[in-house]
Amino acid sequence: MANSPSGDSMTARVVRVLETFTVDRTMQTAAEVGRRAGLPSSTAHRIVDELVAAGLLDRDDEHRVSLGMRLWELALRGSRALRLRQAALPHMERVQATVREHTQLAVLEQDSALFLERLSHPDAGANITRVAGRLPLHASSSGLVLLAHADPELQERVLTRRLAAVSPETTTDAAALRRRMAEIRAAGFVVAPGSIEAVSTGVAVPVRDGDGAVIAALSVVLPREASPDVAIAALLQAARSIRSDLTSH
Amino acid sequence: MANSPSGDSMTARVVRVLETFTVDRTMQTAAEVGRRAGLPSSTAHRIVDELVAAGLLDRDDEHRVSLGMRLWELALRGSRALRLRQAALPHMERVQATVREHTQLAVLEQDSALFLERLSHPDAGANITRVAGRLPLHASSSGLVLLAHADPELQERVLTRRLAAVSPETTTDAAALRRRMAEIRAAGFVVAPGSIEAVSTGVAVPVRDGDGAVIAALSVVLPREASPDVAIAALLQAARSIRSDLTSH
Repeated sequence: MANSPSGDSMTARVVRVLETFTVDRTMQTAAEVGRRAGLPSSTAHRIVDELVAAGLLDRDDEHRVSLGMRLWELALRGSRALRLRQAALPHMERVQATVREHTQLAVLEQDSALFLERLSHPDAGANITRVAGRLPLHASSSGLVLLAHADPELQERVLTRRLAAVSPETTTDAAALRRRMAEIRAAGFVVAPGSIEAVSTGVAVPVRDGDGAVIAALSVVLPREASPDVAIAALLQAARSIRSDLTSH
Repeated sequence: MANSPSGDSMTARVVRVLETFTVDRTMQTAAEVGRRAGLPSSTAHRIVDELVAAGLLDRDDEHRVSLGMRLWELALRGSRALRLRQAALPHMERVQATVREHTQLAVLEQDSALFLERLSHPDAGANITRVAGRLPLHASSSGLVLLAHADPELQERVLTRRLAAVSPETTTDAAALRRRMAEIRAAGFVVAPGSIEAVSTGVAVPVRDGDGAVIAALSVVLPREASPDVAIAALLQAARSIRSDLTSH
């Protein structure tokens, strides 16, 4: 239905339009959307008009469009991500109250760690870029936990790619990563100093559902020299509580 | 482009598909989606296939589909709602720590109060149904604040409709609501006992941007007999802090 000469579906073109909006680019004209989405101008204008009519985009007085609240509502209202995030939130607040650093919840999505939530200590700077942001599986502490518990096919796909170094200390050797993943499964947590930034240490644990399947990673970011003991204990307790709440509600 | 015989656009049909997912219905077959969206079976299957291919829907082993994390990511990543919500979150946590009841952030969307965030006290029951949920403008404390500061055209549209009673104490008389809105603008907050549920009192204040425009309402839900004084002070302080953070970042 409505396939373009290049063969992509109308739905794919709508997605390409939505993809042009980012943290740093929340307002665009239809012409900018079209250029960034690689769509003919008439197509871009038509899709933008339809998205505005449906409430998924908002248009201001200067004809710039932005993602609408209606899109946010549709994406969240029936989402299993919302259920996980709401179950996790009170327990993340407890971790944050104990550890007093950034506390994060991530899931595996398209071979990345996608961050569903990030709590910052009230006196820490706001960090709006990270919710709905991604980090590589092999570099972030959350990603390492998700990768260690992913299905073998996904692990092979990730490990046989070239693994980019996010920092000089990122493990990029596939054999070393395989050993690391076995250690993470055995220990039940990971401590990853410097693998994203030299000044910080990520600490992450798996979050399991009632069946024992790993559905998310819960993590904190500590100053590099801080002991991870308190954070590990707080994260493990929180992960158990989230599992319990997901099972009982 | 791709308009159906009934004249709705392809984008409108995609939206109708997404609208069939709700808090209580997160997994459906393509046939169920088609029936609920009022689309011919072949159209529903094609749109569902395209949404799965684009990652906006996930399909499980039993051919049921659910909203995908990719949709959540696209809806949030470039969203001004995310920026507001992240700016508000640390200050909502402070309100919650002081008041120890549910704390909520709502925006005006399509003549309703749409709830962007809800924090619950760690020991309070999880309440997953309310984030991305809506309440009527004339009944909820958040809605009354948003309505009191809405543009006159929207106020007229809402006030000239039949106003439904959510509880026996909901104000449904337009003249009484007009007086209430003037009081809310003068006071800078609202205390709304019993207008949603007999056992509780909503307390809400406006959240303003750097230009002074009201962009959201911040609220708490108290037990009916509790004094609102502490909550009002905490909410007003939080609203000032959010405005300051939105302006400075």
